[in-house]
Amino acid sequence: MTGVIYERVALIGLGLIGSSLAHVIRRERLCDHIAGHAKSAETRKTAKRIGLADEIHESAKAAVKDADLVILCTPLGAYSKLAEEIGPHLKKGATVTDVGSVKGAVARDVGPHLPQGVHFIPGHPVAGTEHSGPESGFAELFTNRWCILTPLPGSDADAVMRLEKFWRACGSNVERMNPDHHDVVLAITSHLPHLIAYNIVATAADIEEVTNSEVIKFSAGGFRDFTRIAASDPTMWRDVFLNNKEAVLETLGRFSEDLSVLQRAIRWGDGDTLFNLFTRARGIRRSIIAAGQETAAPDFGRRPAPKE
Amino acid sequence: MTGVIYERVALIGLGLIGSSLAHVIRRERLCDHIAGHAKSAETRKTAKRIGLADEIHESAKAAVKDADLVILCTPLGAYSKLAEEIGPHLKKGATVTDVGSVKGAVARDVGPHLPQGVHFIPGHPVAGTEHSGPESGFAELFTNRWCILTPLPGSDADAVMRLEKFWRACGSNVERMNPDHHDVVLAITSHLPHLIAYNIVATAADIEEVTNSEVIKFSAGGFRDFTRIAASDPTMWRDVFLNNKEAVLETLGRFSEDLSVLQRAIRWGDGDTLFNLFTRARGIRRSIIAAGQETAAPDFGRRPAPKE
Repeated sequence: MTGVIYERVALIGLGLIGSSLAHVIRRERLCDHIAGHAKSAETRKTAKRIGLADEIHESAKAAVKDADLVILCTPLGAYSKLAEEIGPHLKKGATVTDVGSVKGAVARDVGPHLPQGVHFIPGHPVAGTEHSGPESGFAELFTNRWCILTPLPGSDADAVMRLEKFWRACGSNVERMNPDHHDVVLAITSHLPHLIAYNIVATAADIEEVTNSEVIKFSAGGFRDFTRIAASDPTMWRDVFLNNKEAVLETLGRFSEDLSVLQRAIRWGDGDTLFNLFTRARGIRRSIIAAGQETAAPDFGRRPAPKE
Repeated sequence: MTGVIYERVALIGLGLIGSSLAHVIRRERLCDHIAGHAKSAETRKTAKRIGLADEIHESAKAAVKDADLVILCTPLGAYSKLAEEIGPHLKKGATVTDVGSVKGAVARDVGPHLPQGVHFIPGHPVAGTEHSGPESGFAELFTNRWCILTPLPGSDADAVMRLEKFWRACGSNVERMNPDHHDVVLAITSHLPHLIAYNIVATAADIEEVTNSEVIKFSAGGFRDFTRIAASDPTMWRDVFLNNKEAVLETLGRFSEDLSVLQRAIRWGDGDTLFNLFTRARGIRRSIIAAGQETAAPDFGRRPAPKE
């Protein structure tokens, strides 16, 4: 048990990440009081019913009152307006952080609205599932995942250390990174995979020769693996792509270039090029499993149960 | 218990599919005798050690002797030579089938080598994991998956019915299809997803700004989902692409076209196009889960265990 790290925490946004934070903060008793806010009345109602926070507030500014740690857990597109709203109501000495998948844009959107004396430290827990909403959270979401903090030049060292301690207490490993580097790393490890997954699902749905019912029936041939990440929250992902344009476009350009090489190899029957590239890919998966970021169970453990 | 469907079965190739067939045939007692063959001495040795078949043969022609059902379970590129070798040794009235992911090419490669009086019925169980080799098989691999049979014009109706009964006894649902249609359906539900997965893994490995260690650490952001299918057997997949060239190139063309639309939407900040496409993709995943081809457990059930 780590004990209380921030007396009062405010969670702004109660989707998958916000609700998972609520669960892990409770389990580890990392604060004395959780204040929650969600824009949607329905989400607030659900959050109250399942007891996600000590208090659920209709407005973000009410939620951040007296908070020692404020965590923005909404889609990126809402940050600027939220920061403008909560800025004047933040406690002096409070830390403001976020969980967004893009970090360069956060400094731009949030920074200018925060008063002197508040510590602003953008962050990103690299964890998630395809589910969303206040009931999708669970305390183990961050266990052994990486949380990236991107402190700005001049960030208060003690405040950064304290936030790092908080994430470690949530089960995460913590890494510090420059925001621009973060955005390039995530463009390839997260944003491009999502874009590709969304795209192939749409392509499949539109092919006239193949019915949607066929796509669904025969999805165990590989397609279904793409649909999991393509089931992620559309608003969140729209905002990611709008806010990490340059890195995503650059990465996508490389992807398309590489794909042309494979396309040509198929057209010309160049089996060696295909074989060599396919062989390399195996090694990377082994490393991901060795690093504890993936399970080696076949089929992610979704092997069907034996017949009765 | 269905009981014996074919007295003697020969499994030519003892990788993931061949060894899984051995397990399910044993469990359900679908034959009296399993003969096995693998090209590699090491695979034969392992197969003997774990008791995969009643007899393991060094040559394919010895394995098919007296067999009532011969199942080709090797990569597609080996079919033609194998068919030529076993053709003269097949029992009159035997059924020859296969498990390859392409069906048009099979009629072309295998058909001409088989004698009159042998029933040749290409097939494809749409099931698999990222693992390969004689020790990767398990009896439940085919449970509730679809097996597609592509009988040729003039196939013997009773022989097709019997093979269908065999696959159902293995746990599969069975669908009959025209070979060309099969190849288009699988191009989108299986071949293109594998190609894209292999490609993105290679792109990620080559980006200079991001180290491989970073790709691995932060793969939980989505990338790791692609690495599973990119860990599939390179020889098998090389042969798939070389043998389903037209359908794959056509499907890939559509994928790239669709991707250009997303690329443009990102470049021009067109959030609506992104949001609408992302929303559609969710529905398809729900249908796949409803059809029993996928689990709804978050993260494929790879949610980490609670902390001790």
